[in-house]
Amino acid sequence: MPMQIRPFVEADWPKVWPIVREVVQAADTFAYDPAMTEAQAHATWIEAPPGLTVVAVEGDRVLGTAKMGPNRPGPGSHVATASFMVAGDARGRGVATALCRVALDWAREHGYVGMQFNAVVETNHAAVEIYKRLGFTIIGTVPGAFAHPTQGRVGLHIMYWEL
Amino acid sequence: MPMQIRPFVEADWPKVWPIVREVVQAADTFAYDPAMTEAQAHATWIEAPPGLTVVAVEGDRVLGTAKMGPNRPGPGSHVATASFMVAGDARGRGVATALCRVALDWAREHGYVGMQFNAVVETNHAAVEIYKRLGFTIIGTVPGAFAHPTQGRVGLHIMYWEL
Repeated sequence: MPMQIRPFVEADWPKVWPIVREVVQAADTFAYDPAMTEAQAHATWIEAPPGLTVVAVEGDRVLGTAKMGPNRPGPGSHVATASFMVAGDARGRGVATALCRVALDWAREHGYVGMQFNAVVETNHAAVEIYKRLGFTIIGTVPGAFAHPTQGRVGLHIMYWEL
Repeated sequence: MPMQIRPFVEADWPKVWPIVREVVQAADTFAYDPAMTEAQAHATWIEAPPGLTVVAVEGDRVLGTAKMGPNRPGPGSHVATASFMVAGDARGRGVATALCRVALDWAREHGYVGMQFNAVVETNHAAVEIYKRLGFTIIGTVPGAFAHPTQGRVGLHIMYWEL
């Protein structure tokens, strides 16, 4: 059964929340509060317009999810941002790459001039490589800005993709 | 009468709001929504603990204001951030520098390892120079990420000060 990426609907949440919880509690790729409640996770992950949240599904399984929207309000709102989470047992299958392509297409269609990632953990090599392959460059790295659970303080990359 | 910097109290708001409104509506230094309401401005500018908002006062005048707090939650919460606004008729008198020194002292006292500015408008030369003089370096610049009202799309610096 092929993977399909479509907009999130509220009925997906019971399958999205375990993915968000797993990623947030691992605390090795996102600077989110590991004690985040389900309600806080929903408020954080489910974007209101003009943003969008999508899910990657395979039959009735949710493999991963992405959210996208303007990176900043007002004079910064022509640059998009996005975030991606993939279920632990669905990694290494190209889900994140597919989600990122969808986010870039979305940004292009909605008139954004680029996409910025504000805090890519430098030890998250899989993500960094995907983003580079899709055309993102590292604008800079804030040294030691992320307290990794096993690797100590590691850097956070700011990455940018220009349309 | 010497300038004094002290924690914000709710009675200051009627004198802080005009400063925030002026800066946000000018839309040349902050990526905030220029249509921000007073309630949204209060929610944005007045920090709850562990963050702090301060005011620079001279007698019963408010010359400027700063807010400070962790830059990110969870694994990013050991790095601080801060923002500064100075009333139009109080510029060029060292208010921003004094506010920034207070924020750096606050960060040091509260155990932060550094301070990050996420979006310093590159044409805001006065601010960039103050930050550099106080020890901040430019980590990188996102090209064209800020729509300046008269100068078109200009870059946003990410700046960092390491303790």
